[in-house]
Amino acid sequence: MIPGRLTATYVIETAQDPARAAEVMAGEQSTGTFVRVPGETDELRERSAARVESLQELSESPTPSLPHARPGSRYRRAEVTLSWPSENMGPSLPNALATVAGNLFELRDFSGLRLLDVEFPPEFAAAYPGPQFGVEGTRRLAGVVARPIIGTIIKPSVGLSPDETAAMVRNLVRAGLDFIKDDELMANGPHSPFAARAQAILRVVREEADRTGRQAMFAFNLTGEIDEMLRHAELIEQLGGTCVMVSIHSAGLPAVAHLRRHCALPIHGHRNGWGALTRCPALGFEFKAWQKFWRLAGVDHLHCNGLRNKFCEPDDSVVASARECLTPMLGGYTVMPVISSGQWAGQAPDTYARLGTVDLMYLCGGGIVAHPMGIAAGVASVRQAWDAALAGIPLTDYAARHEELRAALEAFSQ
Amino acid sequence: MIPGRLTATYVIETAQDPARAAEVMAGEQSTGTFVRVPGETDELRERSAARVESLQELSESPTPSLPHARPGSRYRRAEVTLSWPSENMGPSLPNALATVAGNLFELRDFSGLRLLDVEFPPEFAAAYPGPQFGVEGTRRLAGVVARPIIGTIIKPSVGLSPDETAAMVRNLVRAGLDFIKDDELMANGPHSPFAARAQAILRVVREEADRTGRQAMFAFNLTGEIDEMLRHAELIEQLGGTCVMVSIHSAGLPAVAHLRRHCALPIHGHRNGWGALTRCPALGFEFKAWQKFWRLAGVDHLHCNGLRNKFCEPDDSVVASARECLTPMLGGYTVMPVISSGQWAGQAPDTYARLGTVDLMYLCGGGIVAHPMGIAAGVASVRQAWDAALAGIPLTDYAARHEELRAALEAFSQ
Repeated sequence: MIPGRLTATYVIETAQDPARAAEVMAGEQSTGTFVRVPGETDELRERSAARVESLQELSESPTPSLPHARPGSRYRRAEVTLSWPSENMGPSLPNALATVAGNLFELRDFSGLRLLDVEFPPEFAAAYPGPQFGVEGTRRLAGVVARPIIGTIIKPSVGLSPDETAAMVRNLVRAGLDFIKDDELMANGPHSPFAARAQAILRVVREEADRTGRQAMFAFNLTGEIDEMLRHAELIEQLGGTCVMVSIHSAGLPAVAHLRRHCALPIHGHRNGWGALTRCPALGFEFKAWQKFWRLAGVDHLHCNGLRNKFCEPDDSVVASARECLTPMLGGYTVMPVISSGQWAGQAPDTYARLGTVDLMYLCGGGIVAHPMGIAAGVASVRQAWDAALAGIPLTDYAARHEELRAALEAFSQ
Repeated sequence: MIPGRLTATYVIETAQDPARAAEVMAGEQSTGTFVRVPGETDELRERSAARVESLQELSESPTPSLPHARPGSRYRRAEVTLSWPSENMGPSLPNALATVAGNLFELRDFSGLRLLDVEFPPEFAAAYPGPQFGVEGTRRLAGVVARPIIGTIIKPSVGLSPDETAAMVRNLVRAGLDFIKDDELMANGPHSPFAARAQAILRVVREEADRTGRQAMFAFNLTGEIDEMLRHAELIEQLGGTCVMVSIHSAGLPAVAHLRRHCALPIHGHRNGWGALTRCPALGFEFKAWQKFWRLAGVDHLHCNGLRNKFCEPDDSVVASARECLTPMLGGYTVMPVISSGQWAGQAPDTYARLGTVDLMYLCGGGIVAHPMGIAAGVASVRQAWDAALAGIPLTDYAARHEELRAALEAFSQ
């Protein structure tokens, strides 16, 4: 981190000298354009121009990774760090995004350009309070200590009425789940209006909490228009709910930051759409860079996939992403990684071994609700698997004395 | 368009039978998950499931376009149209985005997935008023008829003080420019606070308008936090300005729709960051699909690059994009295409020939301000080029009697 400067690190691919191409990036994204223009004085450049801080050549390729770049005989890759005076854009996340990830993706000089990391200077911490609950606040509201928060997702994703959803929620809460979330496809449609669904679900959640003394956390997907999101956040607070969820790419940075300022509940950040920004290795974003924007904006939980997930993300990437969520930035801003997608008891030991923490949300769909002995047994099997992981006992050994885990291993092992 | 249904068309690439893969997409993005879950009744599926409306096989490849997909011996491509009951997500742009462009980009079934087009049902028109000014309203405010609106961008992009910027604006207005915009890198930083810059610039713009009877349109980049954007939009209205600009990817759909509802000025939509969503041919979005979201949200102008631009977008793509902006959707919602990047007088005839309209903004940087006879001559050369294009006279002929155009051809032809 360079005080007073915003820095960003990229992998670039170019048919030119990478050092020259890096200068083009720096110029395009600050004071320059193709030619030196009147008014671009040395003093102005000194004060406002982006700088190339470092450049390291990597591999090269005889073919370009992306089409329509300036052609050449070979395409050289390099890791490049640029920096900008933070006074160029002020401590503003949306304008920082336009600076480090704006027009440069379209520059003809590059046949590949991917943002690996970004470092925000302290001015951003003064402007953005960040996660309001994070790991500790979420644990407090969910009443879960010393183990992962175990959760599930309402399925079918869409089509259930508010009362049908609430009836399902009662079963899930009684089964012992700590956390339940709307699917990201469930929003505020006429077959399940947000307010009616929230009322029906929270009636059940509160009734069960009165009975047990612990309230399950339900994340209501309030993704929508600005006023609608604030109105729905207020409704959830009034009804005694403890979490809201937002599809971050649908909402955008300013809407998430606005919600953070006006809502006294944890924000569950769903990253659907992320694949479009990351799946092409030569383009877009690494999660390390991307998640920093959303943490500053104020999400408390952030989806990371899970080990052996049903999507196409490799395990190493999942582990790196979850670790990033738990790595402090600007002295704090820690968010809870949400491990999900194809999860069941079976991944608990590896997840613990690779992350070394229980500060995570562990979401299972079929791995809990399709457990052969029922949903409560599904929850028990996941709890047992984490107990085994924490005790360093192999799952198969632990299963000898825990039938729910044993049934899960029999049903779901491949 | 299918009444009551949201439709989306993709190119997919998969190692499976494409018809089977399309069913996976439809299931994942509506009622289904990997396995049929309890509660997913036939009746619920009938009412809420996404449908595969059509599928046409295209080419195939021995290698996958994107990594980490389920492997196979060949990767088959197909164009697929899915549809969803619009009651699933209600008439909500952010939730429509999560539906048609959410988790599906990460599905392991696909080694390529790109959204080509989306069709919104009429409920969306009832929910979103769309562009408040569009082509006609912008022309009225800018006082320009029967030719393109000719504009430029403040350069250097960053580093000038408010007074230095205002002095430059005076020169640009006096040179005859119809439209001037902030660079997207110029926002609300401490070296040029938005309010101070707006006051300085609009003082000059109003003084010149009093003198000439026609007010140049200045697009102020108010990209920022929600309250900040509304406050700045109100300031521009109070000061007599006629346009605001927003970096749409930095702002997000709900923020743009919110601005549309609270601001009585045209919204100039800057698409910086677009490259990350479109440059990989196997992933992301075609502009045809993407621009529809922003038109519904309410932008009045939308950037499209220009012919022979300095970026890596081919001319055919530029032409298709500009045409889309001018193609009505839901009976209206036409926005003004912004032709920019490397533009000067030279592209006017081809631009007119290919688009067949003058309903566009034609933005030149160096092509106007670096004209060898000065900025006014730069503007004159572009006006002359469009006059020639409209009259069907070759530029070189027209230049014989128009020295500004002649000088531009000599300076900028390659």
